Amino acid sequence: MTKQFKGIIAYPVTPFTHNNEVDAPALAALVERLVSSGVHAIAPLGSTGESAYLSDHEWDCVADTAIRAVGRRVPVVVGISDLTTDNAIRRARFAEQAGADAVMVLPVSYWKLNEAEILGHYARIAEAISIPIMLYNNPATSGVDMSPELIARICRAVPNVTMVKESTGDVQRMHRLAQLTDGAIPFYNGSNPLALAALAAGATGWCTAAPNLNAELPLALYEAMQANDLPRARQLFYRQLPLLQFIVRGGLPTTVKAGLKLLDFDAGAPRAPLQPLGDMQTAELATILANLRG
Amino acid sequence: MTKQFKGIIAYPVTPFTHNNEVDAPALAALVERLVSSGVHAIAPLGSTGESAYLSDHEWDCVADTAIRAVGRRVPVVVGISDLTTDNAIRRARFAEQAGADAVMVLPVSYWKLNEAEILGHYARIAEAISIPIMLYNNPATSGVDMSPELIARICRAVPNVTMVKESTGDVQRMHRLAQLTDGAIPFYNGSNPLALAALAAGATGWCTAAPNLNAELPLALYEAMQANDLPRARQLFYRQLPLLQFIVRGGLPTTVKAGLKLLDFDAGAPRAPLQPLGDMQTAELATILANLRG
Amino acid sequence: MTKQFKGIIAYPVTPFTHNNEVDAPALAALVERLVSSGVHAIAPLGSTGESAYLSDHEWDCVADTAIRAVGRRVPVVVGISDLTTDNAIRRARFAEQAGADAVMVLPVSYWKLNEAEILGHYARIAEAISIPIMLYNNPATSGVDMSPELIARICRAVPNVTMVKESTGDVQRMHRLAQLTDGAIPFYNGSNPLALAALAAGATGWCTAAPNLNAELPLALYEAMQANDLPRARQLFYRQLPLLQFIVRGGLPTTVKAGLKLLDFDAGAPRAPLQPLGDMQTAELATILANLRG
Amino acid sequence: MTKQFKGIIAYPVTPFTHNNEVDAPALAALVERLVSSGVHAIAPLGSTGESAYLSDHEWDCVADTAIRAVGRRVPVVVGISDLTTDNAIRRARFAEQAGADAVMVLPVSYWKLNEAEILGHYARIAEAISIPIMLYNNPATSGVDMSPELIARICRAVPNVTMVKESTGDVQRMHRLAQLTDGAIPFYNGSNPLALAALAAGATGWCTAAPNLNAELPLALYEAMQANDLPRARQLFYRQLPLLQFIVRGGLPTTVKAGLKLLDFDAGAPRAPLQPLGDMQTAELATILANLRG
Repeated sequence: MTKQFKGIIAYPVTPFTHNNEVDAPALAALVERLVSSGVHAIAPLGSTGESAYLSDHEWDCVADTAIRAVGRRVPVVVGISDLTTDNAIRRARFAEQAGADAVMVLPVSYWKLNEAEILGHYARIAEAISIPIMLYNNPATSGVDMSPELIARICRAVPNVTMVKESTGDVQRMHRLAQLTDGAIPFYNGSNPLALAALAAGATGWCTAAPNLNAELPLALYEAMQANDLPRARQLFYRQLPLLQFIVRGGLPTTVKAGLKLLDFDAGAPRAPLQPLGDMQTAELATILANLRG
Repeated sequence: MTKQFKGIIAYPVTPFTHNNEVDAPALAALVERLVSSGVHAIAPLGSTGESAYLSDHEWDCVADTAIRAVGRRVPVVVGISDLTTDNAIRRARFAEQAGADAVMVLPVSYWKLNEAEILGHYARIAEAISIPIMLYNNPATSGVDMSPELIARICRAVPNVTMVKESTGDVQRMHRLAQLTDGAIPFYNGSNPLALAALAAGATGWCTAAPNLNAELPLALYEAMQANDLPRARQLFYRQLPLLQFIVRGGLPTTVKAGLKLLDFDAGAPRAPLQPLGDMQTAELATILANLRG
Repeated sequence: MTKQFKGIIAYPVTPFTHNNEVDAPALAALVERLVSSGVHAIAPLGSTGESAYLSDHEWDCVADTAIRAVGRRVPVVVGISDLTTDNAIRRARFAEQAGADAVMVLPVSYWKLNEAEILGHYARIAEAISIPIMLYNNPATSGVDMSPELIARICRAVPNVTMVKESTGDVQRMHRLAQLTDGAIPFYNGSNPLALAALAAGATGWCTAAPNLNAELPLALYEAMQANDLPRARQLFYRQLPLLQFIVRGGLPTTVKAGLKLLDFDAGAPRAPLQPLGDMQTAELATILANLRG
Repeated sequence: MTKQFKGIIAYPVTPFTHNNEVDAPALAALVERLVSSGVHAIAPLGSTGESAYLSDHEWDCVADTAIRAVGRRVPVVVGISDLTTDNAIRRARFAEQAGADAVMVLPVSYWKLNEAEILGHYARIAEAISIPIMLYNNPATSGVDMSPELIARICRAVPNVTMVKESTGDVQRMHRLAQLTDGAIPFYNGSNPLALAALAAGATGWCTAAPNLNAELPLALYEAMQANDLPRARQLFYRQLPLLQFIVRGGLPTTVKAGLKLLDFDAGAPRAPLQPLGDMQTAELATILANLRG
């Protein structure tokens, strides 16, 4: 039986050594921290994990390391997106072999894809594996925007696309998706500052890099919503909102790695052309993190 | 003491006769229906009221008729927007004289306004009256987009701007506004399909034309949120969402007037260049309304 | 026989007195300057003429004054746009009576218009008059964007729509319009910084407020293009480009009135909510104007 | 002495065999056709060349094959863009070693880059090689938009960025760039339907995939502009415009490969997720190509 994804799905960064190589021990330690903090699932190799900047060899190493570190204590969904369908398939198979519970697929592409091309991409990946696919819509990074109508069509056409992660930050897309699928396809929020609205709208989970820096508040928000305590949820949301806004505005790998350093966890720098967070922004982040503990 | 605006703030259309003149008796009857249905406030001469298409004489008639029809049973906020500051002031004074509890101001302009011009517009209107102003942001119709930062600045600079109606449909603007004003300025949702997310985010009220066609469901949604019953609120929201989406997509005066006709209330046609709703869309609206009663 | 519109079509501002009333003598003097400078046509009551901010009475006065001041020396096209179709018709008839050679129609609207509403607006105005209509597309101010496909459709459906003024600043729209109409509908450029590209693409004329401040350079550019002297046209274009960019960026009535004051012609201030150009920008404009004379 | 890039810079597609491998002999043959047709420069591994979908090994093969096939008869600029700065540097060095006259760099990135990151990317590549860099701005594919102000700043800060290819399709960006660099940095048009406007504005060359299908018309347009014969240039431009619009709308590798097949040159299919052009669109392209020969 496949494991259910719900609640707080945490996205670890990919630590690099000072020689700009994947730091597998640090990744394992980070995943351990996340699992121990109580998050409900782990998602390596997402946008946060700088998947786009890894060689195939590095990518395999990260997938393997993260899955082993989780050790089946919570479900794992692995981001397998790549610019070509063939390499996305290769990664999907690798993830399945390595023990992933699901794969996440963003239709990244240099050239804009038409609907047939997007559908074909999902269909070919789905045929190659037997674990579920979480469809991921994030036009700001992928350059490809999938309407709720197209997403619903893909879910109907490709049976193992069973989950949708929406990262446009537009809650009305979630409403529309719920309408078009009669609520049968669980949707997940991928836009951090939309967390409260998305959970109010019925999101099954929240895909977030925030637990790298603070897992307690996202978990508490999710639990307050589960307990139908909206006033408390709202209070918890506004409390963590400055952190959520900051990490989105500055870019997730960049800001999360800076925040980990402030928390004495060395995950290295993001990979060039990305640059480490500047001093002024790092000071701002330090204040935000201190306020959360206050 | 000024009356508090909260809950469901209903926007009546402006009925026209078959000679394309303002139909004051029909307006009074429509306002009566809305007040009787239990809505918490009335807002004539908004976007829904086709304020932009009325002569000054007609405008005065609508303001006067609506305020009298309410008869102080609930608070009234009158939309006084106009292309020139001088005429907006004239309308604001007229509304105050006629007994309005507040005025609503959208910075409509042919030429895009810079921040000094927007601030000057609000300041000059505020000086001319002693009732509160609800600032209204709706770039889709006004062509002027006010950022949360600018709105907060106006609220600080112009003391009787005491309420903000946000109609961009972006809940993150509401979050930002709450942060920037430390929650001291109540905000109202003006984008119908955002109602659930906005109330979850802490909106004080919902400005809506939906009660012209169905007041019960918006009221029930507001009450469920007040009672902290999120599952019920969510169920009520998705139930009325097709109506909310339809009236926004087709234009409020156009669709609401078509819906009133389906409900045997003759409010006439919208004013040209607007045209009555087409037959196919009217049939779709009839189905939506029937489903709400089902 | 109707007069041909081609070349430099100059848009006078509407001067106001210090009491914020229309200054008819100043308008007549400004029109006289423009005609004497050699421009090929005059267009009162455009965007530049603050048409949107005038009362009906003022509007009539401006139309009448401008047409009389031209005295049939060059053709006159009068902007008759209004928020309602009925008042647009009233203005179109007034303009025809007063001696206009054509009217210019922008589908301004508070509510977004669908294609049937736009077409209906043009058709009803066209039926009411017997002079030609210049269709005007300027979504940045009107809020209504007409695709080349829709424009071509309107030209086919409404025979006295015989000219198109495109102000989106996208030369590819002009190419598309030329293709869709087989070159049979003359198009005019309404985006000042696009002048060179538009004339290269085959524009019949250039609708511009620049001649209020400098008629010589736009005329010289047009003549160089007519003489097929592209290197000279390019040199003339880049020479006047800073002025063209400046007046567009700061808003035409605001910047042109400031520039006229620098040239010792008092056209008053733009009407509130518009505000006069700030001191720093006025100094920048003074430098730009001085460089043109240098 | 470095060779000058000017005129028609042709972008070959990368042919694939039916096993989806790079077809080096077909690429050599295609380059030979292009050089023989009289184009002024060759640019392998651009957007058209599906550079983004090639493995490093394939990329090296294409660079090498194309440079050899040109055999120094015309200058060669090689697209070396990659998601990481390190691999972009590797490619740039490879291209220089293989005999490229310049490299073209688009700041592709998964995460949006800030200005310091973009500048750092160009600076590090520039330090690694001694041949000139053509900066390439194409936000539609790269997701990173560089303003004319930023481009001018990069040109000042990184001395061997000596050419700019602008592909936004906005001629006003070219005007602005010419102003900001006092005309000292040659700019090239990368948006096919903007060719006439760009050459009128002073573009030094036109970067285009059209010569794969028809080199004669782009060459004739460039020559007419060089000869200052604007009426002829305009006529030539509108003649080839349907082809230019078609290949842009359908995606360059997809449409050009379909067109080559129609011309009996088998360059294979584009790489998945891209799909071959559909039958109806292929028929439309056949008609367009037939009309050009007519």
